[in-house]
Parts: sequence; C-alpha cells; structure tokens
Amino acid sequence: MTGALENLTVLDLTRVVSGPYCGAILGDLGARVIKIERPELGDDSRQYAPHINGESTYYANLNRNKAGVTLNLKHPVGRQMLLDLVKQADILIENYRPGVMDRLGLGYDVLSQVNDQLIYGTITGFGQYGPYADRPGYDIVAQAMGGLMSLTGQKGGPPTRSGNAMGDILGGMNLAIGLLAAVNARRLTGHGQRVDIALVDSVVASLENAFARYFESGQVPPRTGNSYASIAPYDTFQATDGHVVVACGNQRLFEVLCQELIGHPELIADPRFTTIPLRVLNNEALKVYIEEWTGQLTVEQVVEQALGKGVPAAPIYDLGQIVHDPHIAGHRQMFVPVDHPVIGRMTVNGNPIKLEETPPVIEQPAPTLGQHNAAVYGELLGLDATRLEELAAEGVI
Amino acid sequence: MTGALENLTVLDLTRVVSGPYCGAILGDLGARVIKIERPELGDDSRQYAPHINGESTYYANLNRNKAGVTLNLKHPVGRQMLLDLVKQADILIENYRPGVMDRLGLGYDVLSQVNDQLIYGTITGFGQYGPYADRPGYDIVAQAMGGLMSLTGQKGGPPTRSGNAMGDILGGMNLAIGLLAAVNARRLTGHGQRVDIALVDSVVASLENAFARYFESGQVPPRTGNSYASIAPYDTFQATDGHVVVACGNQRLFEVLCQELIGHPELIADPRFTTIPLRVLNNEALKVYIEEWTGQLTVEQVVEQALGKGVPAAPIYDLGQIVHDPHIAGHRQMFVPVDHPVIGRMTVNGNPIKLEETPPVIEQPAPTLGQHNAAVYGELLGLDATRLEELAAEGVI
Repeated sequence: MTGALENLTVLDLTRVVSGPYCGAILGDLGARVIKIERPELGDDSRQYAPHINGESTYYANLNRNKAGVTLNLKHPVGRQMLLDLVKQADILIENYRPGVMDRLGLGYDVLSQVNDQLIYGTITGFGQYGPYADRPGYDIVAQAMGGLMSLTGQKGGPPTRSGNAMGDILGGMNLAIGLLAAVNARRLTGHGQRVDIALVDSVVASLENAFARYFESGQVPPRTGNSYASIAPYDTFQATDGHVVVACGNQRLFEVLCQELIGHPELIADPRFTTIPLRVLNNEALKVYIEEWTGQLTVEQVVEQALGKGVPAAPIYDLGQIVHDPHIAGHRQMFVPVDHPVIGRMTVNGNPIKLEETPPVIEQPAPTLGQHNAAVYGELLGLDATRLEELAAEGVI
Repeated sequence: MTGALENLTVLDLTRVVSGPYCGAILGDLGARVIKIERPELGDDSRQYAPHINGESTYYANLNRNKAGVTLNLKHPVGRQMLLDLVKQADILIENYRPGVMDRLGLGYDVLSQVNDQLIYGTITGFGQYGPYADRPGYDIVAQAMGGLMSLTGQKGGPPTRSGNAMGDILGGMNLAIGLLAAVNARRLTGHGQRVDIALVDSVVASLENAFARYFESGQVPPRTGNSYASIAPYDTFQATDGHVVVACGNQRLFEVLCQELIGHPELIADPRFTTIPLRVLNNEALKVYIEEWTGQLTVEQVVEQALGKGVPAAPIYDLGQIVHDPHIAGHRQMFVPVDHPVIGRMTVNGNPIKLEETPPVIEQPAPTLGQHNAAVYGELLGLDATRLEELAAEGVI
C-alpha cells in the first residue's frame, strides 16, 4: 500500500495556505493530488518569502506530495481539459471567492453532472452563503472576526494575532475532515456532495469554552495573558532564566504540587484554593506561592522536578530548539528532508497524523510551475508532446 | 440519512478537550458516539467552570451529540463490558497516557483481537513513542514546546499562549482526519489500525511557513505582533475608535490600496515596496502611509471603504459581537440551542464542517453522568434494570 487514501485522486485548485494545507494532508496520506495552477504566475504564494534559487520554500512546504500542472480555466480548451480531469477524480478543492467557478462554467452543478461521484470542497473566508459570502477573506480576517485575536494577548494589552496563519490551518483541516466524511457518505448515498468551509466558522468553533463563558455570564471574556480561564494553576511562571509552564488540570495534581514541589501543603485546605473554579478566581494569589518556588530554579530544574512528580510542565521552545529536539525532530519525524529540483535538499514540516499501518509518507517535493504537465496530461488525457506544445503556445497550459 | 457518518459507532473514552472535541465532530456528522466515563467523578472537565445548576457548560459544549455511560475499567466486569462494546464498535478513542490501557488489559493488541475492524485512536501530549512519550501533556505544554507561544505576542513582549486551547483543538481535528482516513483504508486492507496523535506534533505542523523561514536563514523567527512575516501589508492598523485589519496578499490588491484607498499611487513604484518580500522588509515605513488613512476613519469606515474596492479588511470582533452577528450566528448557524436535562435551554458552538447533502446536526445535549446507562447497556449488552442495579452497587457502572 502507498497510503490510507491511495484510492483517491484529488484536483487541488487552491492557493496560498488553507486549501494547499488540506491538499498536502491528503497527499501525505497517500492520495494522488494534482495541483492545478494558472500559467505563468501560478499560486500567489510562489511570490512569498523565503526563496532559495528563486523558488519559494513557503510554497514548497505546503505543496509537497503534489504533482503540478498549469491550466488556463478561462480558455475554452482549458475548461474542457478540467472537465476531462474531473471525470477521473474523486475530489476537487478550490478556494476562489463564491461564484468564480460558476462564472467559469465550472460550478458544482456542472461538475457533478460530469461526474456524480465527485466530492467538491470549497474554502473561503465566510462560506458559500450569508451576507458576507462575497467578502474576500484572508487568515488575519478570520482571526479578527472569529474572535481569536480578542482572546489572545497579555492582560490589558492589544488583541493579538496568532503567530501563524491559524485560521487557514483550521480551515484546511476542517476541509480534510469534511472531504473524508463525504468519502464515507458517498458509499451510503451513491454519489458525491459539496463541502463548504469558512475560515471564520473554523476559528469560531476552535474557541471551545470561551463562548460557554460568555453565554453563562453575559460578560465578554477578556484577554488573560498565559493563564487559562477555566483551570488554575495553568500558566507560565518566572524562573531564573526565563518562563516555564506548569499546569494542574485536576485536584490530585494540585495537591502533588502543593505538597511535594512548592512546599506549601497548607494551600490544599486554604479556602481560596479548594476547587478549580476558586483557584481560577484567586489565580494571582496562587501564582505568588508558585513563583516563590520557580523563581529559585532554572526552567530546566522546574521541568525536571515537576515531571519527576508527574506534574505537567514544559519549557517554552523557540523554533531552533524544536528542530533539534530528539523527540520532536527525531522520533516523531516532524521535519522531513526532500530533494527539490530547483531548491535542492530542503526540509519540510512532517505530518502529525501517525497512522500505524499506513503512515504518512513525504517523499515528493513540491512541483515547479507546470512541472508535471507532460506526465499528467499524457497519462490522464492522452495528450502527446506536440499537442502540449500547441496548448502552451495558445496559453492554455 | 442522519449524517455522513451514520454507519459508524464510536466509543469515546477521552477527557477534557482534545479527544472530546474529536468525538463531538464525529457525532455532529452523524456517528453514534458513546462517551464512557469513570463512575462518580466522570470526565475531569465536569469540574471546570462555568457551571449552571451544578452542571459544567464547558463539558456540555464539548460533549453534545454523545450518549453517556459510566464504566469502571479497573473492575474485571467493567473490563469485560468494554470488550463486549468493542465488538460492536468501529472506532475507539482514548487520551490516557501511553501504557494505561495496556495495564488495564485493554491495549490495542487485545482490542484488535476482539474486533479486527476496530480503529483505535489515541491522543496524548507527545505521542505513543519517543523519549517524552510518558510525559503528561496539556494544551499549554504543547503550545509551549510546539513553538506556537514563541511566535505569538507583541514585538519585544513575552511569549504568548493562544487565547484558547489551540493545541487540543488541533490535536482533536488531526485525530478526526486520521480516523476517517483509517475508515477509508479499512476498505482497502480489510481491517482497522491504530492512529497516534500528539498535541506537540499537531502544534508544530500548524506553524506552516515559520520553519521554512528558520531553515532558509538559520535565524529563530521573532514575535512580530500582528504583522505577518511573509506578506505585507497584512496587519492591524490604528483607526479613530480601535484597530482594524487590512490585508493585501498579492500585487493587485496592493495597487488598489495605494491608488484607490490611501491616495498614494506613487508607492506602487517606490523601490521599497515593489515586491511582497520588499514590503515585508519595509513594513514599518509602509504602515505609516496606511495609518495616515486609517487614522482618520472609524473601523467601520475603513472596512466599508476597503471592501468597496475589493481589499480584504475586517473589524476585530469580541465574543459578544460574534454571537450577535447576522452572518456568523445567523446564516452560518455557529451557535445552536439545545435543551439540557439539568442546565435547561443552552447554546453550544455550531459545527464548521458544512456538508451540503448530509449537514452536521446538533440536537442531542451532552449527557449527565451515566445518563444513558440503561439505554446503551440495555440495547448493546442486553442488560436489564436488575442487573444494572447490581453493577451500580458493585461499583462497575
């Protein structure tokens, strides 16, 4: 077997982060993913730094394990070529704004007539319906309107963007879940369907208990820095050489912390700290006791002592520490070398979905623009070199 | 049809956020999800605020669409009952530390002999193997060691935790993807397999281009506040009544911004700003021009003017604005009322995975502890009321 999804062929028309991340997941898990880009420019993210030998490693990370072809969907011949590819595909994903594919004569109603087995996935800022559907949506828009920025940041500080394109990542993952659910449903219904993912919806759903707090109290939850509104102690604490994480999610861990680590067993019966909600309420007072302990130790010492007693604790890694960590980079293989035809030897992010019998495999580097035109159009559409030269000259590929 | 996954039965032994979020996704999409909790205490998150009528709405949000039973896995009769349930299940998920299920005599090797079709999903801080596998892992540990905190926060400020349990959410979503990929693979191989998700891996994979930047430059990426290291302008900007997001992900949008919004068409040819990488490099200088414009307008005016020209822009919503927004709360149904037997009428988060033919449905409130013992054990194990009373008296359920 080449992977859990080796029976699936995916046409990936998406650009930038959200859709490409979804396509990469499917490719890592064994699907045949064909990335379709406009001629000449390709995906916008080919312009995004960093570049090595003129090729974007930003693009190369998110588009590994995909074959790459160019296709001008505005050209009638290009449109027909897409229809011919759709006949042989299980899944098509796109992240144009709503209506763009319809105007190209390639909307879901057309494609599903060509292949009623097709599962058609869309990912947009706001989804396919509703008053904001036509608004353009980038990750930062979703982080802003989905509420994540309002919750992230220091107490009293400004709303803060997650340091990655988290809205895009959440959206791409939701699309992957929706597509695979539709693959299961196809066996029950006998046909494909459309999956509609909005970045904003994806951010909203990720906020878990924050809305529960709003609905219960009617109060807008404020930013709380690194503490958590539902559990305490569960925060960063000052050590001699930086900040360290200590987290006690249940009563037993709190008791171990008081008795065996910070040397304050009397806090267990202290009326300010007898339940998790009380500890949340009196978090600042509790933090003083904990920092009496952490403040005399290095981060490494705190982590070692806490883990020795079974209390969750961690250093705050920067990216250099992560890529050299023996567990994360070593055993979990979260960074994978590939040989890119232009970039050369490079490292892409590993895949976190460890299926034991059919594990994710990352071997194929991202395509240069149109790299697989001959291979893909030859195999799937029966086009020969002469015809491909004509199509290139006509601006179709 | 009742949903895309209506043919699947899931045993959900998970606690707190990561696993329960995965189980809720599967339940929303139509799977039959049976949440299995220890007698008397149940899931740790039943202790997490907020509470209404003594029941946690934190728990209730993450466990809707599940039937709830109690079961003491340390009791030999309880263990046998789980084995009998496994015979009728497609999927089992758990987030104990590695080895706990083995010590209970309920490891994957045992369960797969009872039912070779079983797909067994685990979610832990660090995964099932590697030197840190035995460490306890909470969300904040994964955010810290996975690099998200090192990237999030203001320039020169401290590392910052995402304002939600993002590591748990990412882990739960990766588990859902892995399980559904394994459902597909089961048709190819004829049997189930184990899926191993680590919160830390999930956070690492979510950082998309950040590692590409590290590998290219060898420099540890610093925190950049609300700006983005790969695109500019793409940030928050000061308006008269707050901050507003404006984001130009390609050349065309940048030209529209300069020409039609900020009144500085000369910037298009300015050598500091001619490409996206140059604009990232000279982001601060560019921001001055943009804030000349935003600084004279309200957030609403900036958004209206920008969207009028097709330039992505957004207000930064707080949670109160989101739950009253006609698009998000209205058309996209991202908040759903359910009637909980103890809490009463309450609102849970909607599901962002909009399958058009088999949409997610949220109707069933989270269970009170052991609420469905009679229904589930009656139907699946053939136990009658007398036997259930005995089992309760013996501490099995």
